[in-house]
Amino acid sequence: MPVLVMKFGGTSVATLDRIKRAAKRVGVEVARGYDVIVIVSAMSGKTNELVGWVNETSPLFDAREYDAVVSSGENITAGLMALTLQEMDVPARSWQGWQVPLKTTSAHSAARIEDIPPDNLNAKFAEGMRVAVVAGFQGISPEGRITTLGRGGSDTTAVAFAAAFGAERCDIYTDVDGVYTTDPRICEKARKMDKIAFEEMLELASLGAKVLQTRSVELAMRYGVRLRVLSSFEEQSDHAGTLVCAEEDIMESNVVSGVAFSRDEAKMTLISVADRPGIAAAIFGPLSEAGVNVDMIVQNISEEGRTDMTFSCPTNEVMRAEKAMNDAKDRGEINFHDLVADEGVAKVSVVGIGMRSHAGVAAKMFNALHSEGINIKVITTSEIKISVLIDRKYMELAVQALHDAFELEKAS
Amino acid sequence: MPVLVMKFGGTSVATLDRIKRAAKRVGVEVARGYDVIVIVSAMSGKTNELVGWVNETSPLFDAREYDAVVSSGENITAGLMALTLQEMDVPARSWQGWQVPLKTTSAHSAARIEDIPPDNLNAKFAEGMRVAVVAGFQGISPEGRITTLGRGGSDTTAVAFAAAFGAERCDIYTDVDGVYTTDPRICEKARKMDKIAFEEMLELASLGAKVLQTRSVELAMRYGVRLRVLSSFEEQSDHAGTLVCAEEDIMESNVVSGVAFSRDEAKMTLISVADRPGIAAAIFGPLSEAGVNVDMIVQNISEEGRTDMTFSCPTNEVMRAEKAMNDAKDRGEINFHDLVADEGVAKVSVVGIGMRSHAGVAAKMFNALHSEGINIKVITTSEIKISVLIDRKYMELAVQALHDAFELEKAS
Repeated sequence: MPVLVMKFGGTSVATLDRIKRAAKRVGVEVARGYDVIVIVSAMSGKTNELVGWVNETSPLFDAREYDAVVSSGENITAGLMALTLQEMDVPARSWQGWQVPLKTTSAHSAARIEDIPPDNLNAKFAEGMRVAVVAGFQGISPEGRITTLGRGGSDTTAVAFAAAFGAERCDIYTDVDGVYTTDPRICEKARKMDKIAFEEMLELASLGAKVLQTRSVELAMRYGVRLRVLSSFEEQSDHAGTLVCAEEDIMESNVVSGVAFSRDEAKMTLISVADRPGIAAAIFGPLSEAGVNVDMIVQNISEEGRTDMTFSCPTNEVMRAEKAMNDAKDRGEINFHDLVADEGVAKVSVVGIGMRSHAGVAAKMFNALHSEGINIKVITTSEIKISVLIDRKYMELAVQALHDAFELEKAS
Repeated sequence: MPVLVMKFGGTSVATLDRIKRAAKRVGVEVARGYDVIVIVSAMSGKTNELVGWVNETSPLFDAREYDAVVSSGENITAGLMALTLQEMDVPARSWQGWQVPLKTTSAHSAARIEDIPPDNLNAKFAEGMRVAVVAGFQGISPEGRITTLGRGGSDTTAVAFAAAFGAERCDIYTDVDGVYTTDPRICEKARKMDKIAFEEMLELASLGAKVLQTRSVELAMRYGVRLRVLSSFEEQSDHAGTLVCAEEDIMESNVVSGVAFSRDEAKMTLISVADRPGIAAAIFGPLSEAGVNVDMIVQNISEEGRTDMTFSCPTNEVMRAEKAMNDAKDRGEINFHDLVADEGVAKVSVVGIGMRSHAGVAAKMFNALHSEGINIKVITTSEIKISVLIDRKYMELAVQALHDAFELEKAS
């Protein structure tokens, strides 16, 4: 029988009633003739509670024990979901990561999936099991210990199962009904997309759309797994949600697909840095070691052997960045007159695979911002996106203006 | 290094602070040179919460899924305890049942332990691990699924590990500081015993003393595991608590060791049963099938082919017993004039291995009750105990009178 993977996140299984609701959706797919692999998260709040206990017990915890503790939330949901399905007369059983087995590396609490041998599940499917309820987010290391895949790992688990079992599709049930052209809370004209390309989804996910974990999209792209994002809180038609798929499955697309944004950005400028070969390494090496996630980098033209160097990072990493720069200065590795932090900025980006073949996207973007009187502080571009840093107070205005300018309210 | 098993029940690990307190006791034993196997229960309340969810989801649940869900509480405690020990610089790691492995039968939610191969733990002890923190109450079936041993199974887990590893002793930390001659809440003269024989403990446990699970005492007796019951809430000397051990380890004991009681008893009498060969089977067969736990049985002398048959059972099984008897009568299997249930009775017992060699215990017991004006309704005896059913309102009085009569406040 064809296989379907269905993943339910924490809010979709937060209570016994919601588990029942999710189980009914699974039952519909079983009735359609699918063998279903269900991936479940912990009931929402459970994992945070467990993580809190671990942190309180041991601030510098042994990640192996962390994994043993925090993986238990998913096990509970898996058992309850299997019981709920059985109550509906659907032959189901729960599987913990080590039972499948889902084999991972030994990188505890951030393990990578190595292999999912399908034999155990397939043997049970052959015996009449119609649903395998698998605890998400967890696996087993070569040493036989429980591993976890890191936060959001249940999405990744789902995609990996879809790839291993050649599933027809991987449906990710969550608390939103799909991927939008931008956040509807900021722009009321935001439109749910029916389809989006893997590459676009990756840019949107990493830019803050937060619908799917980046890693799961990367994995889906690599193995060609068709991902569907849809709401577990609404009645679903066959074409509900948003399909994340290969570019070639999208007949005609808008030049720009969506507008992403990130609120908590800071812009930092090293004023009058002594410019010399290797200066970039001397600056960004210490920042990387200090755990600062540098995003955009701009270097001004050098005058008289000195230049200004600007970069952006998350707001809560500003203090670490300042310390790293001042320490490097004290050690004589770099030399600058001043370090200016602007914590009042936001990043706004337009994303679309159509950019590859269409010129003028950047000009249209800058014009739209200009006509609203919004000043652009930093610009970066990639093949399918253009990002700008602007004053945070203009962020919502910028998102709305760009959404209008690219007519994203209209389907392609 | 010699091995010690230490078991901490739910109230002893109910909070992170209590886990820390328990870990400190473990640290003391490690410092003394023991390799320690710690068996932990779920934090108190956790298992009940999980059982509640399972029952609500599926009243006639699949016991395999029940086990997968309810076993998670112990896994959490095991990880937290290992982390706490690591914080104290004690080399420790957690073990779930399947990792040890603790092999059981496939009788889910009431599995029996089949084998505990010591190789995995011993290999880690040889590498320098000093404490193995094992999740109690759980194991793995021949089919590779998680099993549980039934309520109170953590005591049984502890004793089984002590037997498998030839432990010097198995210390059961709980919320009482030992085994008493009777319940101190009922008799203020109750005295903590330093030692008690396995056989006596078995009678006391099954009669309601509730300190140790009966199964764990049976197992300890079979394998000669020295069990010590002690409080995790008090500072401990080396001779704290009560040692449960073989009869020959107790130099001199009182004739009677303790007074046990059970409040929720009912006495049922079938009046004027037609007496014939096989009548007992015709009565107690249906009761057993109906799940009624019959305890005491008394049959009066038969007159003119009819007799009265009296038995006792827990109060909450009276309705089931009545239905079973009336159904059997309707089917013509038995014949009686009336069925009288007396739900206002209690059982009081005196227990002691010294009874084997001392006559007059029964007479002393009956005299003590008689002099308080307490009427005895039913009597049963075994080699080391005498039990009576009396009106429940006299239960406390009877316990105190018997405690005085056998001078249990004095150590032997």
